[in-house]
Amino acid sequence: MNGTASHTAVRWADGRFGASDETVADEVPVAMVYNGVSHAVMMASPGDLEELAIGFTLTEGIADRYADIVDVELAGVDGGIEARITLAQHPWQRLKAQRRQLAGRSGCGLCGAEHLQSALRPVARIDSNYTTDAGTLLAGLTAMAAEQPLNRATGSAHAAGWLGAGPLLVREDIGRHNAVDKLVGALRMQRRSDDGALLVTSRASYEIVHKAAAAGIPVIAAISGPTRLAIEMAESAGIALIGFTRDERLTVYSHTWRLDGPNTVAG
Amino acid sequence: MNGTASHTAVRWADGRFGASDETVADEVPVAMVYNGVSHAVMMASPGDLEELAIGFTLTEGIADRYADIVDVELAGVDGGIEARITLAQHPWQRLKAQRRQLAGRSGCGLCGAEHLQSALRPVARIDSNYTTDAGTLLAGLTAMAAEQPLNRATGSAHAAGWLGAGPLLVREDIGRHNAVDKLVGALRMQRRSDDGALLVTSRASYEIVHKAAAAGIPVIAAISGPTRLAIEMAESAGIALIGFTRDERLTVYSHTWRLDGPNTVAG
Repeated sequence: MNGTASHTAVRWADGRFGASDETVADEVPVAMVYNGVSHAVMMASPGDLEELAIGFTLTEGIADRYADIVDVELAGVDGGIEARITLAQHPWQRLKAQRRQLAGRSGCGLCGAEHLQSALRPVARIDSNYTTDAGTLLAGLTAMAAEQPLNRATGSAHAAGWLGAGPLLVREDIGRHNAVDKLVGALRMQRRSDDGALLVTSRASYEIVHKAAAAGIPVIAAISGPTRLAIEMAESAGIALIGFTRDERLTVYSHTWRLDGPNTVAG
Repeated sequence: MNGTASHTAVRWADGRFGASDETVADEVPVAMVYNGVSHAVMMASPGDLEELAIGFTLTEGIADRYADIVDVELAGVDGGIEARITLAQHPWQRLKAQRRQLAGRSGCGLCGAEHLQSALRPVARIDSNYTTDAGTLLAGLTAMAAEQPLNRATGSAHAAGWLGAGPLLVREDIGRHNAVDKLVGALRMQRRSDDGALLVTSRASYEIVHKAAAAGIPVIAAISGPTRLAIEMAESAGIALIGFTRDERLTVYSHTWRLDGPNTVAG
């Protein structure tokens, strides 16, 4: 299967060891190279890398619009894969100016943040009256579970899904941020502009909410819980942030009005 | 509880909404500032930040030895917390030289890697004959589950544990890399030099194995699975990498000889 590798391991069970052919998640270092300048490297599952490049470029605010990404070319090089992205003049000049301001090696956890001031980047409030309901989100996460072949084969992959007007769209990656970026890239490449909900198999972290906000997504439903700053960002971005979406229940942490249903409590 | 925040949310269950006081994981942006220069910012659970700073500095190879970290001071500043780390002359000169080589904003997923060549950093082979056994690792992960108050309160925290000659040591964080860094920092601050196994509640990623290798840890037991490059790095570093350590079984992906027991297969 694409995105997996075979490895002969040793399994221990019932007090005994035995040889075992295991399927593990493959991964590859991917460099995002903008107009010839290498900008960031991440480990990613090897599929859907053009989508990853487009999604990353948009959710990290390097380009504001899909139209500003002129071209993406993938090139296998020594040590990994380069995603060679051609930016339009305006975002490229802005990126160059940002790079000049910052002094060097940086950026663990928060993409490229070297100073505290750049860590908590403000986001625009989402201009959408989109609402959905609890049953739809729970059914969406159940449907997404059936569309995670990489995780089924390896037990090691996250998924991000788009529950909008069209068919459910799912992307998988060993990294949960990458799964969201691949999904956003796929939506843009497919020219889908329907409102909808982002489904994630992970918790709802600050970074996931930030990426969703940059992509204009009004609802996030996560299987696990949110963090404090994730809730604050969702509140200010106009996003309904939903956690623990499983076992026929869910918890809404912000903008409850986006959830239809009886006895809706003002959010 | 330290590391948590309260949030009034809305819970949906059995077709109805109701107000609900939720406990969520707190987080804070932490800037690693070396000899006055801000180097990286990450989101972290707010406890054990001195340990985080020491562990990060060591597992990212910024200092090779604990003795090279002259001082760590935590300072609350606008927007987060600064960990002000004083490095000895040699590692500081090396860090300054690295920063000059690299051109700017960088580093998503792989700490500070801006070019593919720097993504897959080589590690030294671990010089230790340490062995353990499957029962000890499974019991260790069971014991660790009882020492995760942050995760019990919020459902959103990872844990890293040290199963060595002394008592089980556990650190929690919303980020799995941070949990490992806090644990390594705690071990160094406690001057513990016992051989042992690193327990992690997450999957065994390349980055986790790399941090363990930098800290000289010979065994890693993860609850979930490993990735291909994590196995390769464990093989070359001399680390026994163990996945799916749960439900009274486990799978050994590298250096099986570090697992004692009947019918051990050569690894």
